[in-house]
Amino acid sequence: MIIVLKPNATKKQIDHIVKKMEKLGLKPWLSEGVERSIVGVIGKEDVIRTLPLEGFPGVEKVIPILKPYKRASLDFKKTPTKVSAGGGVVIGGKEIIVMAGPCSVENQKILLETAKVVKKSGAKILRGGAFKPRTSPYSFQGLGEVGLKYLAEARERTGLRVVTEIMDVRTLEMVTKYTDIIQIGARNMQNFDLLKEVGKVRTPVLLKRGIASTIKELLMSAEYILAGGNKDVILCERGIRTFETFTRNTLDLNAVPALKSLTHLPVVVDPSHGTGRWGLVSVMAGAAIAAGADGLMIEVHPNPEEAFSDGDQSLLPAKFDTMMKSLRKIAKAVGRTL
Amino acid sequence: MIIVLKPNATKKQIDHIVKKMEKLGLKPWLSEGVERSIVGVIGKEDVIRTLPLEGFPGVEKVIPILKPYKRASLDFKKTPTKVSAGGGVVIGGKEIIVMAGPCSVENQKILLETAKVVKKSGAKILRGGAFKPRTSPYSFQGLGEVGLKYLAEARERTGLRVVTEIMDVRTLEMVTKYTDIIQIGARNMQNFDLLKEVGKVRTPVLLKRGIASTIKELLMSAEYILAGGNKDVILCERGIRTFETFTRNTLDLNAVPALKSLTHLPVVVDPSHGTGRWGLVSVMAGAAIAAGADGLMIEVHPNPEEAFSDGDQSLLPAKFDTMMKSLRKIAKAVGRTL
Amino acid sequence: MIIVLKPNATKKQIDHIVKKMEKLGLKPWLSEGVERSIVGVIGKEDVIRTLPLEGFPGVEKVIPILKPYKRASLDFKKTPTKVSAGGGVVIGGKEIIVMAGPCSVENQKILLETAKVVKKSGAKILRGGAFKPRTSPYSFQGLGEVGLKYLAEARERTGLRVVTEIMDVRTLEMVTKYTDIIQIGARNMQNFDLLKEVGKVRTPVLLKRGIASTIKELLMSAEYILAGGNKDVILCERGIRTFETFTRNTLDLNAVPALKSLTHLPVVVDPSHGTGRWGLVSVMAGAAIAAGADGLMIEVHPNPEEAFSDGDQSLLPAKFDTMMKSLRKIAKAVGRTL
Amino acid sequence: MIIVLKPNATKKQIDHIVKKMEKLGLKPWLSEGVERSIVGVIGKEDVIRTLPLEGFPGVEKVIPILKPYKRASLDFKKTPTKVSAGGGVVIGGKEIIVMAGPCSVENQKILLETAKVVKKSGAKILRGGAFKPRTSPYSFQGLGEVGLKYLAEARERTGLRVVTEIMDVRTLEMVTKYTDIIQIGARNMQNFDLLKEVGKVRTPVLLKRGIASTIKELLMSAEYILAGGNKDVILCERGIRTFETFTRNTLDLNAVPALKSLTHLPVVVDPSHGTGRWGLVSVMAGAAIAAGADGLMIEVHPNPEEAFSDGDQSLLPAKFDTMMKSLRKIAKAVGRTL
Repeated sequence: MIIVLKPNATKKQIDHIVKKMEKLGLKPWLSEGVERSIVGVIGKEDVIRTLPLEGFPGVEKVIPILKPYKRASLDFKKTPTKVSAGGGVVIGGKEIIVMAGPCSVENQKILLETAKVVKKSGAKILRGGAFKPRTSPYSFQGLGEVGLKYLAEARERTGLRVVTEIMDVRTLEMVTKYTDIIQIGARNMQNFDLLKEVGKVRTPVLLKRGIASTIKELLMSAEYILAGGNKDVILCERGIRTFETFTRNTLDLNAVPALKSLTHLPVVVDPSHGTGRWGLVSVMAGAAIAAGADGLMIEVHPNPEEAFSDGDQSLLPAKFDTMMKSLRKIAKAVGRTL
Repeated sequence: MIIVLKPNATKKQIDHIVKKMEKLGLKPWLSEGVERSIVGVIGKEDVIRTLPLEGFPGVEKVIPILKPYKRASLDFKKTPTKVSAGGGVVIGGKEIIVMAGPCSVENQKILLETAKVVKKSGAKILRGGAFKPRTSPYSFQGLGEVGLKYLAEARERTGLRVVTEIMDVRTLEMVTKYTDIIQIGARNMQNFDLLKEVGKVRTPVLLKRGIASTIKELLMSAEYILAGGNKDVILCERGIRTFETFTRNTLDLNAVPALKSLTHLPVVVDPSHGTGRWGLVSVMAGAAIAAGADGLMIEVHPNPEEAFSDGDQSLLPAKFDTMMKSLRKIAKAVGRTL
Repeated sequence: MIIVLKPNATKKQIDHIVKKMEKLGLKPWLSEGVERSIVGVIGKEDVIRTLPLEGFPGVEKVIPILKPYKRASLDFKKTPTKVSAGGGVVIGGKEIIVMAGPCSVENQKILLETAKVVKKSGAKILRGGAFKPRTSPYSFQGLGEVGLKYLAEARERTGLRVVTEIMDVRTLEMVTKYTDIIQIGARNMQNFDLLKEVGKVRTPVLLKRGIASTIKELLMSAEYILAGGNKDVILCERGIRTFETFTRNTLDLNAVPALKSLTHLPVVVDPSHGTGRWGLVSVMAGAAIAAGADGLMIEVHPNPEEAFSDGDQSLLPAKFDTMMKSLRKIAKAVGRTL
Repeated sequence: MIIVLKPNATKKQIDHIVKKMEKLGLKPWLSEGVERSIVGVIGKEDVIRTLPLEGFPGVEKVIPILKPYKRASLDFKKTPTKVSAGGGVVIGGKEIIVMAGPCSVENQKILLETAKVVKKSGAKILRGGAFKPRTSPYSFQGLGEVGLKYLAEARERTGLRVVTEIMDVRTLEMVTKYTDIIQIGARNMQNFDLLKEVGKVRTPVLLKRGIASTIKELLMSAEYILAGGNKDVILCERGIRTFETFTRNTLDLNAVPALKSLTHLPVVVDPSHGTGRWGLVSVMAGAAIAAGADGLMIEVHPNPEEAFSDGDQSLLPAKFDTMMKSLRKIAKAVGRTL
C-alpha cells in the first residue's frame, strides 16, 4: 500500500501515520521527495485495508498494491480449475461446454422438447429458471419447485446436466436437491449472504457478473464462495450496463482474457443476455469462443413468441443447431473442441 | 405500446401481429405510412408486456408507452406520501429529516457517543449497520443482533429513531424487532425476495438506488414493496457508478426532482456514499436540499481513523455540527425547515 | 414520430399539436385511449425533428420512429460498400484487411523497419500518427508533415497503403497529399466541421467511434461525410468508456454485428485501443474477426519500451506475426481470408 | 510514480528498469517485499510519463502519483482566479454570474427580445450559438457570422456581455471579434488544435466538460489553454453520459466541490444541458449554487416551441424570472450574491 502525502503534510502528521502502521505490526518506509513524500507498506494488506487512511490528516490518496482476492488468484493456484458438473461434463478443459435452454421453465412439455433439441445439437447442460428475478412484480416469477422437478426430469430423460438460478437463501436445500450447478444471477452477485451459503455446499456455482460490477469485484464475490470452502466456481460474463442502448447490455469480451490472466477459474459467456437480441447471439457466441471462453450459456426456445420471458433474445432450435455447427469450426481454429 | 414494423414487413406478418393482439383481448390499430407501418395498442400494457414482440417476424422495434409501475406513480396517488418513523418523526413533510451515525455499529460506547452528538446537532434518526455488505469476505461483516441491540439502546437513551440495513430475509423478524426503518442497500435493490418480504411487514422501508439502476428500476423495486402492502417506502439517491473515478460514486441529484415528478414517495439523499470523500459531503448535502430532498443520510464518526468501514467518507462530529448550521440556511431558502 | 400525451392533456392542447403538424404539411392521426391519447405522424421526420415537441403543453414524451440517418442505412443501399484504398487493397470484401504500425511516427528508421515486418506478416496497410491527440500538452504531439513524408516513403518502399489521422481542418490538403485513408480519431468523431471537410474530398475515411458515442451517433457522423459526397467511409470500433478500469476501454464487439444489421459500410476493429493491454490484443483480434469485422487496426512497435506513445498496448513484431497466423485460422473458420 | 513488479520479476528485469530510470536522470528506489517488490520514483513525472512502463517485462502495473496538470492546479496558484468578461462582469468572485439566452441565435428579433428579458431578471451575460454542433447533418447548423453580429448588437443594446461557441479554428479571428467569452463545447473539449489556438488569444474561454471526460481530463484540457498563455479559463460542468436515460445527461454536481479542491479556476454549471428537461432546470440551478458554482448557464427562449434547437430544455422568460428570485435566496444562504 502506498500512502501519498499532501505537499504540505507536516512532520507530525507523517509521524502519526508511521506510528499507526507500526502499532499494527507493519513496517512502513518513508520516502521523501522534492514535491511530496510517500509512505509505503508491503505485506499484510488485509490489516491495512481496514484503516480509512484517506481520512487521515496530511494524506492525499492511498493506492493499494496487492490484489484484494487470494483464493481466486492465479498466484494462489497456477493451474486452471476444472469444474465437474457430473456425468462426465467438465467446464474448464479443452472442450467448450454449451449450456442451453429456455429463460424460464414454463411447462414440462416445452422444457423437455427444448432439452431434446439442444442435446441433439451438442449442448451438454440444460439451463432454465424456476425462480426468476423480474424487474416488475407483475411479471411471471417462475414455477418454483415444480420447475425444478421438470428440470430434474428432463435430465433423466436426456442425460443433460442441469444449471438453474437461486435467488433466496431459504431455497438452497431445495435447489441443490435438483440441480448440478447453482447459478447466482447478475443481480445477486453481491448478495453476500447468498454467496456465503453457496460457499458451504459442494454443488458447483456459476457466478454471473453484475451489470455494473468490475472484474475485480467479480473475483471478490468468487472469493466469498471459495473462502466458504466451495472450490467449484465458474465465472460468467453476461454483459455490463453502459450508455449504449441499441443492445440490452454491452458484452465485455475483454473480460474473458482479462480474467484468464488473473484467475484459475473457468469463464463462460452468455451472449443471450450480453446482446439482448437474438440476431446477434450466434455471432457473439463465436466471438466469445475466440476470446477464450470455456463455455457458453444460450437461451433457446421452440416458440419465442410464446416465451414467458426473454423471448426477444431466444434462439429457435434450428438457429441454435446452425450456430453450433459454426461454433465447432471456430473452436477448432483456436485449438478447442465443442 | 407502439410496434414499429420493418419497411419490408409482409401483409402476412402484420396480420399475424394484429391477430395475436386481438386474441389477447386488445384492440390494435394499424397505421400504414409511406416508408413503414406501425401498429399501436393502448391499455392493458401488463398483458402486452409479456409478449416478446421484438422476436416477431416483421417487427423492427417495440416502444412501450405506459409506465411499468402503478402504485409508486403520481398518477396513482397525487399527494406526497409522508412516512412516519414514530416518535413524531415524519419523512416527506416540510421538515427535512437528517439521519446520521456511523457506517457500522462497532461498539456500544462509540455508537452512543455518536448518537448523542448527532442528536444535539439536530439529527432525528440514528443510522448504523449491524449487517454490513462488504466487497471482501475478509472485511468486518458487522456485529449482527448485538449491533441491533446497541442501536435500540441508543434510541432509548437519546430519543432518536433508528434506521438499519437488512441483507438477509432470514433476519427480517429480528431486524424489525429493533429498528424503526428498515434499509435496503444499493446492492439489494433488486433482491426481489427481500423486497417481497419487507412488503409484508409494516415497518417503513428506506430503499436505496442500486449503483447501476435507473430511476425507473428504482420505482419498480418500490412497486414490489408497495404491491406487497407496505405503503411506507422512502427512496434514497446515493450515487451511481460512472466512468468518473475521482469520487467514489456520481451523486445523481437530477434524480431528486425527476423522482418528484414521477412519484408521491419521499426522497432522501446520501452524500456520504454519493461522494465517498468527507471533504465533499457538507457541500453536497446542501445541494441535495436545494434539489428538493426530503431528508439526508450522513455518516458521522467520532474518530474516522478508527472506523471499521467507510472512515474516508465519515464526518467528525464538529464538522457535522457546522454542516447542520449551513444546511438550516439553505433549507430556509427553499421554504423548508431542518 | 409518436407523441404521447399526458393523461390530463386538454382538448385545446391536443388541437394545438395537431394544427402545428398540419401547418408543417404533415398528416397526424390522433388515437384516443382509455388512460391517455397519442398523436402519430409518419414520414418527413426531418421536418418534425426540428420541433421541440417535448416542450409543448400536454406532451409527456416524444418517440422517434424513423432512423435519423439515411445514406448510411441499409435501407438506402442494400449491398455492402467496398472501400478501395488503392493498390488492390479493398476493405469490405471477403478478405480481412489488417492495418498495422506504430502509434506515432517517431522516426524514419523505426517506421520503415516496422512497415517491413508487418508487411511480411500479412498486413496490407501501414498505420502511424503524424498528428497525435494527446491528453497532456506536455506529451509528444507528433512530427507533422515530416511524419507524413516518412509514411509516404514507407509506402514507396513496401507497397503497403497508408492510413493516418487528421485532427485539424487546416491540414486537410496536406494530409490527403500523403495518405490513402484519412483517419478521424475517437475524440473528433463529432468534430462536425472536420467531418464536413473530409466529406468534400475523395480519399476514403476511417471514422473511429467516440469513447462515449452510441452506435447511432457513429452512423450520424458517417452521415455527415456521406452527405458531403464522400462515399468511402469505414467505421471503426475501438472501445468505449465504461466503469471498468482494468482495461483502458471496453471493446464493444456487439457493435460489429449491430452495425452490420444497420449499415452497408465496412466495419473494422482496433483491439489495441479497445483493450489498452498488449497481452489481450491478439485474443481480442480473433474475437473481432469472429464477430464479423472486415479489418483490424493493430499497434506494432519494434521496441515498445522506447515508443513515444501507447507502448503499453503495442505488439512486438514477433507477437504480431504469431497473431496473424492464429487469425488466419479464425478467418477461415468464418469463411473469410486474411 | 510507483512501479509494482510481478511476484516473479527477475533481478535482471528489475535492474533493467532501475537503469532505464537512471539513464533519464531520475533516482529510483527499490523496495523489496515478501510477496513482491516495487520501484518508486519521485519528481519529474513529465519525463517518466513518456515511458510505456507497463510494457516492460516484469512490470505488473504503474501508478502515477503526481497530478498531470500544473498551471491548472491549486498547488501552482493558491488564490481563486477571477475572470473578467469586461463591463465589470467578473466570474469567480462573490457574485454568481448568470449567462442566459437561446440555444441558437435564430434571428435578430428573438435574440434581442430574449436579451432584454434575461437582463431584466438579472443575467449578466447573453449566451447564444452562431455555430451549432448538431448530431445530424440535416439539422439547423447556425447562422454563422450573421449570428455573431446579432449577438454583438444585442450587447450594444442591453449592456450584457456575450458568450458564444467556437467549433472551427478557422473562425477564431471572426469569433473573437464579436464575443467577450469564447465557449469550447463538450464535443470539442479534446479538440487539441482548437485548445492550442484559443490559448494564444486573450479572450476568456469557457471550457465545457466532455460528456465522457473525467475531472482530470477537463483540467488537462484547461492546461492546454493555460500553457498557451491564456490565463482566463472558466470550467463548465454540463452533465455527463451515464446509463440513465430519463434525463438527457447526468449533472455531476460532485464535480463542483471536487474541482474547487483541485484548481483555482472558476466553475460554472449548465443545468439546461445537464438535465435536458426544462422542468428540472430551476431546481438544479439552485443545487448548483449550493454546490459552490460561480455561475450558471441557462437556456431561455421566448417561445420554446419555435426554437430551432433544444426547445425541450429552454425556460420561458417568466419561468426564468421566477427562478432567479429563488436562486437569490439560495445564493444568500451560502454567502454569495446574485
